Amino acid sequence: MESIYNFSAGPAALPKPVMQQAQSEFINWNDLGTSVMEISHRSKPFLKVAAEAEQDLRDLLSIPTNYKVLFCQGGARAQFAAVPMNLLGDKKTADYIDGGYWAQSAVTEANKYCQPNVINAMVEIDGKKAITPATDWPLSDDAAYVHFCPNETIDGIEINDLPVTDKPIVADMSSTILSRQIDVSKYGVIYAGAQKNIGPAGICIVIVRDDLLDLASDLLPSILNYKVLSEQESMFNTPPTYAWYLSGLVFKWLKAQGGVTEIEKINRTKGEVLYGYIDQSSFYKNTIHPNNRSLMNVPFQLAKPELDGLFLQQAEQRGLQALKGHRAVGGMRASLYNAMPLEGVQALVDFMQEFEQANA
Amino acid sequence: MESIYNFSAGPAALPKPVMQQAQSEFINWNDLGTSVMEISHRSKPFLKVAAEAEQDLRDLLSIPTNYKVLFCQGGARAQFAAVPMNLLGDKKTADYIDGGYWAQSAVTEANKYCQPNVINAMVEIDGKKAITPATDWPLSDDAAYVHFCPNETIDGIEINDLPVTDKPIVADMSSTILSRQIDVSKYGVIYAGAQKNIGPAGICIVIVRDDLLDLASDLLPSILNYKVLSEQESMFNTPPTYAWYLSGLVFKWLKAQGGVTEIEKINRTKGEVLYGYIDQSSFYKNTIHPNNRSLMNVPFQLAKPELDGLFLQQAEQRGLQALKGHRAVGGMRASLYNAMPLEGVQALVDFMQEFEQANA
Repeated sequence: MESIYNFSAGPAALPKPVMQQAQSEFINWNDLGTSVMEISHRSKPFLKVAAEAEQDLRDLLSIPTNYKVLFCQGGARAQFAAVPMNLLGDKKTADYIDGGYWAQSAVTEANKYCQPNVINAMVEIDGKKAITPATDWPLSDDAAYVHFCPNETIDGIEINDLPVTDKPIVADMSSTILSRQIDVSKYGVIYAGAQKNIGPAGICIVIVRDDLLDLASDLLPSILNYKVLSEQESMFNTPPTYAWYLSGLVFKWLKAQGGVTEIEKINRTKGEVLYGYIDQSSFYKNTIHPNNRSLMNVPFQLAKPELDGLFLQQAEQRGLQALKGHRAVGGMRASLYNAMPLEGVQALVDFMQEFEQANA
Repeated sequence: MESIYNFSAGPAALPKPVMQQAQSEFINWNDLGTSVMEISHRSKPFLKVAAEAEQDLRDLLSIPTNYKVLFCQGGARAQFAAVPMNLLGDKKTADYIDGGYWAQSAVTEANKYCQPNVINAMVEIDGKKAITPATDWPLSDDAAYVHFCPNETIDGIEINDLPVTDKPIVADMSSTILSRQIDVSKYGVIYAGAQKNIGPAGICIVIVRDDLLDLASDLLPSILNYKVLSEQESMFNTPPTYAWYLSGLVFKWLKAQGGVTEIEKINRTKGEVLYGYIDQSSFYKNTIHPNNRSLMNVPFQLAKPELDGLFLQQAEQRGLQALKGHRAVGGMRASLYNAMPLEGVQALVDFMQEFEQANA
């Protein structure tokens, strides 16, 4: 079979060696004669899996010791409620930087719990979508925290600035975590649904500074309570053990690649190859300003949108999967998470070139 | 390798043929060249998986058309909050039948949202733990619903009665769903964490009567809102796709066994074999009254508790895994979910007999 390259935005492809290992030990894990998903989360072998996954993630992101790492359920959507319910305390508002679809979705949910101060950070420069500099964001004095989404999966926008504030910064890093270096100590809370750069759908990582654990609303369901989860080491309820195990394998794979420093270099090269090709072509276009182009999600459009269907069909035949853009944006989207090798991006560009030659 | 029988209370063993199929198609599912966990939940192939799983569950439990089936995250623990937040409406109380550990855990969480009317249904008859008849439960007039847990995984107690009420009956069926026939039309809400009789940990089934969808609290996180999940066909957030797929395979396996009617017969036989052996022995005991013995979770104690460690060690050597009792009860516990074949129970009894002969 020809190489398959899966550009799905999420649930996304996982590293091939991880999937191969998981398959080989699927039924007989650790010589137990059973699967890792069939044992108690409180058994010694699973506790070891859980602890190693946490430690590997701590190593990869240099997470300071005053931060807790939680393995949760409900995805980032659950965090849209969990963040205000955990962090507002007696405050009535929080700042929400609006950079696209997911930032807006977080606001919609936050509206239940407070009056979010929504700061529109989107602007057009030279006909391209861009994000205003953080120094221009009108933060409020009485915000409990400042929320933003550094990578907008649908829009293909990446925010490289950090809010300029001494309030806790809360970041939805679902589609950017582990793709580039970050300084965790600058954040109050980082959360990320796993199904892009971590593991399968069904697990969500929360990294929370430990001075923020005592502010929860009395009405917060316990399964979303950072303090409860922290005290119970993410085992207040039965955790999604198989997703946790797979995430752990991904962390080990990433360490073997040289960690975040090395994967960031590869990700930058992947971005240069794809954006570089798009920019020199008049057949394809990307409408995001170079300052804010996402390294993880690259939406692009054909100059002849009537060819979208043919493009997708021929791409699929070449083993280039899941390139259809989100319905909110249209066109195509190539997601280039850590598990996508440079060869996959090169194969995409080769195909785009052939398609352009045949149809320009 | 000798046969392994895994008596884990949860995450529990899944049917062997399911695990074998899942392993064989782990990396190349449906000839896509990729795993089912690596494709979009909104892709046609996954939507088919999702719809088939729902239909198979509807067939297995004869779920009436006026009930919605939701595939959620957060386990039954999440439902401990979701139930009151979805169902209280303007009511201030709900009845909670107390039959053991999990019923009590549901009360603890419900306390955040209402003043639960807790009805202690536990009683001792002839030195054995039993449950009072439902006709004796003092239900309140102003309850929004009546909550109970028909099978107490830790205590090994099964409640065969239904509350006598015209209020919505809410049942935590985590460890009993699909093990015996039920009449869904008698319930308002049935919920069940998957990791016992359905699939891997990380997915939770909610079956809800559609007239109960309009009572949700404004403060309910959307990911726990039955109406939102129902309108979005359990895809308001990215669902745990791999757990959903595996649950679907379990449903197909169960249908191939003859459905719930047939598996119930096997489960009854399994219970007779194990309880029958315990009852004729003075070396082992079970402290639950025969009327309320769980078919799914059989706790038992040795007359000489100092031999517990030796029992567990030798059992493990024989491939009889995860028999250690919950710390709250002590001794041993054999969980006999659907995936445990009769031969596994027979192997356990054979070992118990040998151990008794050697150590009585």
